Amino acid sequence: MIILVLNCGSSSLKYQVLDMKSDNEFSLLAKGLVERIGMEVGAIVHKVPGKENYKVERPIANHTEGVQSVLNILTDPDLGVLKSLSEIDAVGHRLVHGGETFSGSVLIDDLVIEKVKECSDLAPLHNPANLLGVYAVTELMPNTPQVGVFDTAFHQTMPSYAYMYAIPYEYYDKYKIRRYGFHGTSHRFVSKRACEITGMELDNSKIITCHLGNGSSITAIKNGKSIDTSMGFTPVEGLMMGTRSGSVDAGVITYIQEKEKLDATAINNILNKKSGMQGVSQLSSDNRDIQAGADAGNQKAILSQRMLSYSIIKHIGSYVAAMDGVDMIVFTGGIGENDYQTRARVANSLNYLGVDFNEEKNSQTIGNDAIITYPSSKVKIAVIATNEELVIAQDTMHIVNELKQSK
Amino acid sequence: MIILVLNCGSSSLKYQVLDMKSDNEFSLLAKGLVERIGMEVGAIVHKVPGKENYKVERPIANHTEGVQSVLNILTDPDLGVLKSLSEIDAVGHRLVHGGETFSGSVLIDDLVIEKVKECSDLAPLHNPANLLGVYAVTELMPNTPQVGVFDTAFHQTMPSYAYMYAIPYEYYDKYKIRRYGFHGTSHRFVSKRACEITGMELDNSKIITCHLGNGSSITAIKNGKSIDTSMGFTPVEGLMMGTRSGSVDAGVITYIQEKEKLDATAINNILNKKSGMQGVSQLSSDNRDIQAGADAGNQKAILSQRMLSYSIIKHIGSYVAAMDGVDMIVFTGGIGENDYQTRARVANSLNYLGVDFNEEKNSQTIGNDAIITYPSSKVKIAVIATNEELVIAQDTMHIVNELKQSK
Repeated sequence: MIILVLNCGSSSLKYQVLDMKSDNEFSLLAKGLVERIGMEVGAIVHKVPGKENYKVERPIANHTEGVQSVLNILTDPDLGVLKSLSEIDAVGHRLVHGGETFSGSVLIDDLVIEKVKECSDLAPLHNPANLLGVYAVTELMPNTPQVGVFDTAFHQTMPSYAYMYAIPYEYYDKYKIRRYGFHGTSHRFVSKRACEITGMELDNSKIITCHLGNGSSITAIKNGKSIDTSMGFTPVEGLMMGTRSGSVDAGVITYIQEKEKLDATAINNILNKKSGMQGVSQLSSDNRDIQAGADAGNQKAILSQRMLSYSIIKHIGSYVAAMDGVDMIVFTGGIGENDYQTRARVANSLNYLGVDFNEEKNSQTIGNDAIITYPSSKVKIAVIATNEELVIAQDTMHIVNELKQSK
Repeated sequence: MIILVLNCGSSSLKYQVLDMKSDNEFSLLAKGLVERIGMEVGAIVHKVPGKENYKVERPIANHTEGVQSVLNILTDPDLGVLKSLSEIDAVGHRLVHGGETFSGSVLIDDLVIEKVKECSDLAPLHNPANLLGVYAVTELMPNTPQVGVFDTAFHQTMPSYAYMYAIPYEYYDKYKIRRYGFHGTSHRFVSKRACEITGMELDNSKIITCHLGNGSSITAIKNGKSIDTSMGFTPVEGLMMGTRSGSVDAGVITYIQEKEKLDATAINNILNKKSGMQGVSQLSSDNRDIQAGADAGNQKAILSQRMLSYSIIKHIGSYVAAMDGVDMIVFTGGIGENDYQTRARVANSLNYLGVDFNEEKNSQTIGNDAIITYPSSKVKIAVIATNEELVIAQDTMHIVNELKQSK
């Protein structure tokens, strides 16, 4: 089954074309990125494994034109990987916010679109952009089934005492303010994959997944279900991130607002775009620059590294307590997969759990899947490369197969 | 040594008179409360152990008049416990915020007063009120030494990676925004006392102290030193409390501000006075009312109880990880000392630490000091009645004794 995976942002569009034989047998035919949609000059980068990358710059008026450009390239005799569009069996979309409505992936129809629109107030930058991709495909390939895979869906199994904030209850009734969590597709994927590799039973396990990248979140997964996660109502909560503050005393927020005369939008901007590693190090939001700074003895770079690992350690500890134990801790995402020094700082504070950390294996694990504890370790630590596009393709395949069978 | 302990709020004044023979040999001569200072009608309640309480209502113009009233009562032939004021050897003051300046208790002189004033921006409601008590004593008993004991001092041993927030570094430089922590006097007292009872060496221990009352905080104490604590720049951070929210996604705060058109002061008020147990239960901020509600099947009361214990469990877990282990967990404060059901909910999520919880002993422990784990337990859990006034008297005694010796 050939599946086009689309991830539409407000002015960009990422795509992958996957040929899915089964969940674990698949091949990536092509992937790419359309940027600066609606601006004076847009850009397309198209990559086919084993071939040279194709780049072009030209105006791309809107998402429909963006999707049309992708479809043209995919069926181009020289650049393409498909003979005709009819080879595409289904399209899978990344949808950010499913609110309390969506606890799993769904076949997209008019009712689903309505419900996703209703969730737009919770993700005003993301949901409307995601839907532009849906509309474009509906226009250009009206008979191809489309599936939506939500970032929030995996976390809908959290109990109310984990997702409610201790603020007046009326804000939940009125505005649906609660913890939703994000990166659900990634947490779900790596927990499942780590179980496959280690032979652990997902349905009978306590796993903590650490998705650490420019945005970061940690999830407690008990018997395959998310029971708590560090991102909350918005993706600014929890861990320290590239430019996001993570958790901060509410009194700090209002104090800065008063001292600097900032409204809600302005302080929100600071907490989302000027904080985190960037704000503390005053150097960069990129973990590799921070590492270089720390290596050169920059004290603020060293401080921000320690704050990051301390923030990870405390979140892991809190979820171990929440599940009354842990069987496996999984690292993923750009930092989780590649930064063995951060992993080592974290693992070395977890001796109380009986972690028997394999320092050598850890330092050799950069971007590849591996178990970085000794077999004797009471708690396993795994590094797993995440693949959200694959999850979207898998879910799309399953839903379309069910659809065919039910017909 | 007879010590008058004063705790001055903006319109109230609590006092105790203690006869200190040594740290652990002392007797309480009298205690009381002056309320509604500066209002139309003030009130004084004066308690002498073994005697009937004395209550009077009359206008009390300011703190000097409040302190004068207390001194009059203390030396009154019928109500009093002292022959003359000259029997008071020293006065110990609770001072809330010592910023980064004070890491211990100090003899109060003009320089100290200046420095406490400098910290007033960090505690605008508390420090100026605390100083009113100092000024009153200076006026009325100019030759009696005064000692200041800070709520924040005990936490000054936190490492920078624990006290810095992941916001732009300039806010630390400019406004001294960082985690300070509060309840330091209580955390210090109960950790020391729990070691005395159990024979544990404070200097070689990992202890987590849970001060749970109307305001609540949890502290990680390694070898007798605070290394992290849940209250932060302000006392709104961390645990869910009576009317305070504890930690909340920053995005929630700005979202409510925008939706409800609230400025920083207004949202701060909601998070401090209308949230926590009160906000979620919509019933009461008092834990006993919540328990009654839960017993009667009130779902929001049950939810707020679960949220409270979950919030405690997660904080304990994070500090176990921060210290890479724990030897003892101590409960104190109104809820910590009396609410055995909350203690049980917490302890029953800590089996992974090797906690062997004594349910029966726990349910019998209401307001008394006790160890509520079996001797076989890898981690001890203790209940210790806190006594902040005693710590103030102890510190005052030590500092005045040193002063005498140095003369």
